[in-house]
Amino acid sequence: MIERTGKHIIMTIKEMAAAMKLDSTQMASKSAEIRNHVLEEIARILLSKQEEIFKANEQDLLEAEQNHIPEAVVKRLKFSAQKLADVTQGIENLIALPDKVYETQLVRELDQGLTLVKESCPIGVIGVIFEARPDALVQIAALCIKSGNCAILKGGSETKHTNKILFSLIYQAAIENGLPKNCLYQADTREEISELLSCHESVDLLIPRGSNAFVQYIMNNTKIPVMGHADGICHIYVDRDFDIEKAVPIIIDAKTQYTAACNSVETLLIHKDAVDCLMPKLIKAFQEHHIELRATAEIADKYDSKPAEDEDFATEYLDLILSAKTVSTIDEAVLHINQYGSHHTDCIITEDQRAAEYFMKMVDSAGVYQNCSTRFADGFRYGFGAEVGISTGKIHARGPVGIEGLLTYKYKLYGSGQVVADYASGKKTFHFKDLSQ
Amino acid sequence: MIERTGKHIIMTIKEMAAAMKLDSTQMASKSAEIRNHVLEEIARILLSKQEEIFKANEQDLLEAEQNHIPEAVVKRLKFSAQKLADVTQGIENLIALPDKVYETQLVRELDQGLTLVKESCPIGVIGVIFEARPDALVQIAALCIKSGNCAILKGGSETKHTNKILFSLIYQAAIENGLPKNCLYQADTREEISELLSCHESVDLLIPRGSNAFVQYIMNNTKIPVMGHADGICHIYVDRDFDIEKAVPIIIDAKTQYTAACNSVETLLIHKDAVDCLMPKLIKAFQEHHIELRATAEIADKYDSKPAEDEDFATEYLDLILSAKTVSTIDEAVLHINQYGSHHTDCIITEDQRAAEYFMKMVDSAGVYQNCSTRFADGFRYGFGAEVGISTGKIHARGPVGIEGLLTYKYKLYGSGQVVADYASGKKTFHFKDLSQ
Repeated sequence: MIERTGKHIIMTIKEMAAAMKLDSTQMASKSAEIRNHVLEEIARILLSKQEEIFKANEQDLLEAEQNHIPEAVVKRLKFSAQKLADVTQGIENLIALPDKVYETQLVRELDQGLTLVKESCPIGVIGVIFEARPDALVQIAALCIKSGNCAILKGGSETKHTNKILFSLIYQAAIENGLPKNCLYQADTREEISELLSCHESVDLLIPRGSNAFVQYIMNNTKIPVMGHADGICHIYVDRDFDIEKAVPIIIDAKTQYTAACNSVETLLIHKDAVDCLMPKLIKAFQEHHIELRATAEIADKYDSKPAEDEDFATEYLDLILSAKTVSTIDEAVLHINQYGSHHTDCIITEDQRAAEYFMKMVDSAGVYQNCSTRFADGFRYGFGAEVGISTGKIHARGPVGIEGLLTYKYKLYGSGQVVADYASGKKTFHFKDLSQ
Repeated sequence: MIERTGKHIIMTIKEMAAAMKLDSTQMASKSAEIRNHVLEEIARILLSKQEEIFKANEQDLLEAEQNHIPEAVVKRLKFSAQKLADVTQGIENLIALPDKVYETQLVRELDQGLTLVKESCPIGVIGVIFEARPDALVQIAALCIKSGNCAILKGGSETKHTNKILFSLIYQAAIENGLPKNCLYQADTREEISELLSCHESVDLLIPRGSNAFVQYIMNNTKIPVMGHADGICHIYVDRDFDIEKAVPIIIDAKTQYTAACNSVETLLIHKDAVDCLMPKLIKAFQEHHIELRATAEIADKYDSKPAEDEDFATEYLDLILSAKTVSTIDEAVLHINQYGSHHTDCIITEDQRAAEYFMKMVDSAGVYQNCSTRFADGFRYGFGAEVGISTGKIHARGPVGIEGLLTYKYKLYGSGQVVADYASGKKTFHFKDLSQ
């Protein structure tokens, strides 16, 4: 049972989700002007109340210290003036993006006076469960508002004080500027997550972000469609015809630029003819960056490396460790990636454009790259304005998911009395004419 | 354990699905020319072997008679010369459709020498479980080939003889004309369905067609994404300002043209000011077509009707029965549809264009219609060439699903040595320039 701040309404998550479902068509019908205005107000209020936000954040930092939270987590939960500037800039970018809600995707005259229109529209009610990062709360709420969706938000408990004030400011800006009462809801406790998982009648989509085990748990315990990724085992394949000036910096960046990210590289596949050219320089760079190499015998015997077990190639290290093996052909590399990978992001380093095209066609991943770091797999870097997550599923959205992943479509059919019996009997026939939009 | 006809390979469905998964990138890489040529060969071989097909079908009809299969089912399982002509024409239509596999959806220069390409591609391995209709087997196999997907097909057991010969002809045409060995597989037994449900590591999408209970069973017993619809509770709302010359034929068509279809109407909502104009004519038409009306008191008291219980509004009759109630406002109609409906197809009968637009915006269904029969909700009638099913989900495909619902996309990123560290440090910045395709 939960109490809505300042409202004295006690509702379960299930009741809340049902109320949101009813409000979701109201939310979906709001104009781009209203949605963008709300976003402007959110940016404004966050900046004007920054002292209160930073104070709440200090409380979270203090508790994190008392609870001996790891340094890496503390770094993410700190909400600085710089992070506030980044998120408000992110909101401004979102406002500037063209509106995709109610975009006409097809106009087809089926017969005279019978016109089919395919039009995008919001999905409805979206549940997002995310890590302890205050900036994530703001980004996700902003994306849901921009896309006309109602949202249930559950952030990491380590940022509860910051989340509480951020959410109440965002919610206030939303309802004071025309969005329906149940457009946004913040879940506070871990118990609410399991209740949320049973809300398949009201919640249209769940987006869990977090550890492999956590996302797997969500996927296995709900009937609600889930968008996301459990793990990120990304590969870099160094082809025979490669440029070492590109290869070494890309591998180092993909491993070290943010080691704990899902799009950092975990496995290196090296064409057997490329090993002797690549390894001496690479080993030196690994030593400089304190990267531990675990390689199969043909590499380990010659260069400074621990031996790799089969298990290594199925492991997301999220650490300064990299597995490596040689392959005899590009097909062997493709097969390894499709079997051991997580269909997230995989890269070929090659100067041979035909090899690149072949690799990019045959590797079954959301992102297939040539000659650049796997770390580019990100909604901001793709120019989506923001992302709610990265999907390794192939159904609906794939890869970094921005506004388009939060939309569906409906078919509108405008008739003038048509019945199917006339077409079934052959009295009338369809002429299918696509009209310009 | 199953034996592949003429191949002496005994594999479980799980092993078969894993083999298909490996072949799926080969399948996906076949050119439009190869895929269309295979379709041509399928149409040709089906016509040339029609006597054998009809003979197998007679066997199914004979067994259906012996097993006292209901008349409606027998009608569907009969495979006549007319049905063969229809399906081969359907294949020709598919061949003529523009190829959507590997269609460029976006080309964006992120920075100089760093270009993002979003390209459509097949989903991979699709499992389709469908009713006892031989034409469905041909259509579904053809759609999967056209879209570059591998497919596991399981048809109704009442057509097993017809399915067996149809599948073997289609499979032969497929592998003799360049598709990989494991592009298609036909499952024979009911037990194989439960095995198929556990193949979430190899099967990317399940499309079950059939009864409400069957589809619910599938949805509740697999981790594989499921596309389809459990039920079809479609509504027609007769607004105040309506044309009776349109209303009566549309309601009769939507109820009687194919009563057992998911897109036939189950509930009539009538604006209170429209009742007295509509009902006398409508009651007469109901009597002519033997339609039983179950209405709330304000209608039942005045016109020939049984009383409707609340349960009636949540029931998919699939029979010559129609529930009805009056509403005081269009909002009441919208609320009823969003609460009781199955988000399939709902229609407003009105001459008031503003009311139509409001209804079509606020009703949360895959199809929202004005002044035409709900029976138009169908891939052929939308001009998709064919459909694999109708989706009432909002994730991925919605409404009738043709080729586009069988495709996903991938992001290709072409670089020239770029690393993320340079962008994180501010040394480089993205310039996001969308290029013409």
